[in-house]
Parts: sequence; structure tokens; C-alpha cells
Amino acid sequence: MKPMGPIPAGFGREEGMLLIGGCGAESLVDEAGDTPLFVYDMAMVEAQVRRFRDAMPAGIDLHYAIKANSFAPLLSRMAVQVDGFDIASGGELEMALEAGMAPDRISFAGPGKRTDELTAAIFAGVTINLESEGEARRAIAAGQAIGKQPRLAVRVNPDFDLKGSGMRMGGGAKPFGVDADRAAALARMVIEAGADWRGWHIFAGSQNLDAQAIIDTQAATIALAARLSQEVGATPPLVNLGGGFGLAYFPGDTPLDIRPIGAALGQALESRPPILAGSRFALELGRWLVGEAGVYLTRVVDVKDSQGERFVVVDGGLHHQLAASGNFGTVVRRNYPIAVASRFEAAPALDPVTIVGCLCTPIDRLGDKVALPEISEGDLIAIFLAGAYGASASPMAFLGHPPARELLLG
Amino acid sequence: MKPMGPIPAGFGREEGMLLIGGCGAESLVDEAGDTPLFVYDMAMVEAQVRRFRDAMPAGIDLHYAIKANSFAPLLSRMAVQVDGFDIASGGELEMALEAGMAPDRISFAGPGKRTDELTAAIFAGVTINLESEGEARRAIAAGQAIGKQPRLAVRVNPDFDLKGSGMRMGGGAKPFGVDADRAAALARMVIEAGADWRGWHIFAGSQNLDAQAIIDTQAATIALAARLSQEVGATPPLVNLGGGFGLAYFPGDTPLDIRPIGAALGQALESRPPILAGSRFALELGRWLVGEAGVYLTRVVDVKDSQGERFVVVDGGLHHQLAASGNFGTVVRRNYPIAVASRFEAAPALDPVTIVGCLCTPIDRLGDKVALPEISEGDLIAIFLAGAYGASASPMAFLGHPPARELLLG
Repeated sequence: MKPMGPIPAGFGREEGMLLIGGCGAESLVDEAGDTPLFVYDMAMVEAQVRRFRDAMPAGIDLHYAIKANSFAPLLSRMAVQVDGFDIASGGELEMALEAGMAPDRISFAGPGKRTDELTAAIFAGVTINLESEGEARRAIAAGQAIGKQPRLAVRVNPDFDLKGSGMRMGGGAKPFGVDADRAAALARMVIEAGADWRGWHIFAGSQNLDAQAIIDTQAATIALAARLSQEVGATPPLVNLGGGFGLAYFPGDTPLDIRPIGAALGQALESRPPILAGSRFALELGRWLVGEAGVYLTRVVDVKDSQGERFVVVDGGLHHQLAASGNFGTVVRRNYPIAVASRFEAAPALDPVTIVGCLCTPIDRLGDKVALPEISEGDLIAIFLAGAYGASASPMAFLGHPPARELLLG
Repeated sequence: MKPMGPIPAGFGREEGMLLIGGCGAESLVDEAGDTPLFVYDMAMVEAQVRRFRDAMPAGIDLHYAIKANSFAPLLSRMAVQVDGFDIASGGELEMALEAGMAPDRISFAGPGKRTDELTAAIFAGVTINLESEGEARRAIAAGQAIGKQPRLAVRVNPDFDLKGSGMRMGGGAKPFGVDADRAAALARMVIEAGADWRGWHIFAGSQNLDAQAIIDTQAATIALAARLSQEVGATPPLVNLGGGFGLAYFPGDTPLDIRPIGAALGQALESRPPILAGSRFALELGRWLVGEAGVYLTRVVDVKDSQGERFVVVDGGLHHQLAASGNFGTVVRRNYPIAVASRFEAAPALDPVTIVGCLCTPIDRLGDKVALPEISEGDLIAIFLAGAYGASASPMAFLGHPPARELLLG
């Protein structure tokens, strides 16, 4: 048997059936029409937003990195919950505007922005987080070409990393932002070119469960922003401190308590250097806001034995849930939390089972030797932590299966 | 510097520019309208088909596993090149029929076939490779429900594997097929139920570069098919011997010479047991047929330095080329062959560069510290071996970028 990660809080049970947002999993499938299905509980997302507001000091904006989940109904709801959207492509620009987010509260990061994307962003009036001197020149030229002053922030590759992160975005040679020792010169160049300098974007890492590491990194980020602003000789309108709040996906993971982070951030902001006195600050979160609120529901197509091992074959798979299969930036495959929806929290059967997707490839494995209640053909399997980097980050067209359905509750 | 895999034969150069199917890479981008672009050279695919026919003995059918590349124009051309299509979903069934392949030359494998997919396949008259006893019962019931005799083969999980395969599909507990010791009983059940028993599907592994391992596995597969057929007491109309022919993707890989495989297979068939005298045989190939014929062309958006390392940022990325980024079933990331299209085969610059995609994630890395000629913004980068498991096997919607364009030549 191999362990699985902890099922997030916030789900219920009625007559043995998993409840999502108070609704039975089977009736949600009925409502959506079929499996495989992603269900997102907006009430859980909003509870997470409240948790953020309660823990963080006043004056900290909350930005949503829409790459985590850009399902249109969810985006529209998020637009009134958060203070800004962070986008990463021209396509996401359209989604963000469509969702009703004001352009001056949208910022656009990403190392490979094409000139047509820069032009569209400047035309719309969103802030571009510049990733390089070359991109700055292209953005300024694009603004001149359409006769509009661009709003430009400078993304900094910090000279430190966020220790223990799932994804390291700083500390070392990186394709993101400009090295800290060139950042002030770039900001001055932007200002001298007549652009509207919006400040700094400093993103050191993501998916982190170590509160102290996040506290230390935020302090270092504020210090770096102050030092760079001194070099520029101007107060940045906004300092985006990055994100990094992680979720507990795997066995042994301890959920992150953000309250000490908020307390420490409050102290750090109170004692911040005068050059940052007039600045706003933002945290940029994606996964942490929406990840736990999503469940992937997939129907058991077959239960079969091979050489003493039991396989449960479902109608979903890595084409919708690449990360849960262990094929998205992870070296060692570990089990996401999984349940049998109709026997939620029931005692496990004696023998563990392996849950595989319907794809004809050995890498389509959603649960490896997990302890679950007895499973039969037709049962519904729930895979948790499916709210972020699920539907949008998986090879949906692979093997010609239909895309997963998506349903927003609440 | 890190090495990269060998560039496949079959590409030309004119005034420094990479030629694909005799056309300059830049003019192909013009024709398609933009980058990122997959170009497939049908002449290279057809040459590979001829290589197969020349090497293999008479009476070996060539099946194309369309999951490798199901671009509609390519599928239509393949339909007249090969003897059958192997499909893995109801969606692929539609694509195969649309391409003009006769239903009785289509076979459908995959561990998670839903009943609606089984019904559609039986209605169309394609052969279903049964993955379990439960699937057999569902298929027989589906045939009765629509009043049509199903064509059913039995997929066998062999009691041996194909040593050195990129993907192991046999030898041990597997979700594919039924264990060899239950296969004859399943075939008898199928026959007794009045279905049209089509034979065996035995697939031991894929992406293999060891000719001797393939030869040994094919001999073992024929022996297994004979033993199972004796147990059934009937001659199988078709024995699908699986695939396994690999391509040289990585540094140190030696291209596979299939001629000794064909010679050994010819001998194995000549001396086959009498129960298989009236059987046809097929090999099922996907990657090997189309992989080398594809090139992914992506434009350089930025060239930037960070802490002494040079990054080349392109407008494509893992959303089109997940496998090349090392995130599709591989544990250690290695470099696919890459070239600067406009300086094809030119001498490399002094310092290696890292090619990253446009996605805002550190896992979007297409070439790690590779030796390439001097690169500037606007240059075209070619990533080879992009004909299989590229466009269709990547998370196309990730970060909201547009899908890659595709172009078939020849």
C-alpha cells in the first residue's frame, strides 16, 4: 500500500455520498450530464479569500493568477473577490477583460511575450511586468506605434530563492525577470522613455508549505524593493511580492497556516523604508485560492485483476489531470487524495487498488496502490485538489477523448 | 554544455536555411501564417513505410496507431499507405472513419472503453481488442442491444516484457489486456457468445532501440499466440504482434535498423506452429512511422542573460511540446535535437544557450545548455522528432496561448 495525501476540509457526507458544496456527487454528475467532470465550489474559494483578508494586514492587495483556473464562470466571480488579475498571455488578457476585471488592475507577466501581445496589452491599458531589456524596448516601441503610454513594471529575478518551493522562480540564472543588479537601470530606462512606471514584480517561488521560509522571503523581497527603489530614486506605485502559498497535496504534507505570515508581513510593512511609504503591495496567488475547491469526478469503467494486483479503470485520466498522474514537473509520482464518492469516508477494503485512467499508456496512473473502500464498475471516483492546474494544464486532446466537463457551484 | 540528440536524416539546407520537404523553413512559416508551427513531411512518412515494407516479410500487415499523430490531412494520406488503423477512443474512431479507413481494418484498444464507445465501435464494424472479461461482457451485451455481431479480439498481457522499452506494456501486473493464463478462456467465452473472434493483440512495449530485444519478443509473442490458440482450439484470423520500434531522440541513442528484425520475423513465421498457418500478422506502429517526419518551428521572442547564463525565449513551449520539455513519462530531462533554422548546420557559438518556452513556469525548457550558432530575436528555432506525440499530447490550452499550427507537406 502507498499512502495518499490528506483530503482537504470543507466536504460533507450524506448517506455515504460525498457532498461538494452541499450537493451529492452523483447528482452533480447528473446536472453536468456526464463524467469526467470538474466541480468547483465557489463558496470554498470565497472562504479562502476571507482567510487571506483576515490574516493579511490592511493595504495588501490580493491578485489572482488566472493560469491556475481560467474557467469563465469562475473568473467572473473572482473578478469581484480579488483586487487584480495576473495574466500570462494574450489569450488570458481576453479572458480577464471578458470576466469584467478593470484593465488597470490586470498585470501581464511571462518570459515570451510576443510583440502582438504587448501591443494588445498596452492598447487595453494593462500593466506589463517587463522580463528583459529587450522586452522593454519592444513595449516602448509598441506604445509609440499606437500612440499610447504603456504601463510598465519591472520583474526582478531576486538574488535569493524561496526555500522549499515546488517551483523555484528566483535565486540563480533564470528566464524570469531581469537580474536584481540590472533592475534599477531598467526602471530608469522605462521612466526616461516616458512610460508609466508601475513598480516591481518579484516572484521567488511557488507551492511552499513552510511559513517561516515565506516570511523570510517576503522580508527579503521588501528589502530588495526598497534598495532598488532607492537606486531608481522613485517610489514604486506597486510592489508585487509574488506568491508562494502552497497546498497540502501529498502524504506527510502539513497545511500552511497563513496567519503568522500575515502578522510578520504587517510588521515588515510598518517598519518599511521611507521610499516605500507611498507604495501599495500585492500578493499574487493562484493555486492556493482555487486548488482545494475543485474535485475531479470520474466513473469506474472496469475493475480487473492482473497478476495479483487490482486495477480500477476510470473514464478520466491524465488528459484532464496531468499533475495527478505525476507528469507535470514532478520527479517522483505520489498519490493525490482520492475517494470513492458513494462510500466517502467508509473503511478501506483489505487490499489496495491502483486507479488508472482510460488512456492506453502506462503513465496514465491516478492512484498507485491506494487503500479505498470496495469499488465496482459504475462507481464514482473523486480526486481532490483538482481546482488548480487541472483542466487547463492537461493534454485535453490526447487520444481523442472529449474534454472534461466543468461545473461551478455556489 | 549538455549534448542533444541526433538530427534525423532527410532534411536539407539551402543558403544556410533548413529545408523540410525541400521547402525553406521560413517560407513554410509564411505559408502557415505564423509560428509556432508543426510541419510534417509526408514524403518522409512514406519513405518510412517503404522501409518497413522492404524489411518485413510478405504477409505482415502494417497498422498505424493514430494516437501518435491524428492530424486529419496526415490521417487521410496514411489511410492508403497502411493496412489498418489502431485507435484508442470513440473520438479516434470518428477520425479513422473520416480519414477513409475501412471499418474492418480498424481495431480499438484501450483499458477504459466506455459502453457508449463499445456500442459505436460495434455499430461501425471495427474490431475491439478486449482488455478484460468485464469489457467482453459489456461488448457482447452492446452487440445484442443493437442487433449486431461484434468483432472481438483478445488483448493479452504477456508474461514477458520487451526489454529496454521506453514504455513497458507487458511482463508484470498491468492494466492492459488480460493475463496470458486467462486469455484462452476469454477467447472461448467470446466465441461461445456468438461474437466474431478476430484473434490476439499482444503488445509488450514501445520505443525500443534494441533490435535483438524486439526479435526475441516477437518470437515469444508468436509462441504465446500459438499456445493460446491451441488452448482455444482455433486459428486466430489476426495476430497483432504489437509495435516497439523506437526512434533515436537523445544523445547516445543509435537509430534502430529494422532489417534484421524483418529477417528474423520471416524465419519465425516460416517455422510457425500449424495452428497459426492460416493467420495474418500485423505490426502496430505509431511513433516510428511519423515521429522523424515532424519539425516544430518556433520564433525567438527574446534573448537574455541571467547570472552568466544565456536564455533564448521562444513563442512556443511545453503547451505544444510536452515531451521535449521532459514532462511526459520521463524521469530525467534530456535534450531533443534542436537547430537554428536560418543557420542550419552552422558552427556553434562559443557559449551554450538554454532554450525556454514562453510559459511562465520553470518546467518550460526545450533545450538545456545546448551548443547552437549565434541566435538573435526573430530567429526561427527547429525542434526535431516532433511528428509524434507533439500537438496531440500536449496541454494546448495551458496559459491561454493559441494552439500550434500544423502543415502537411508532400
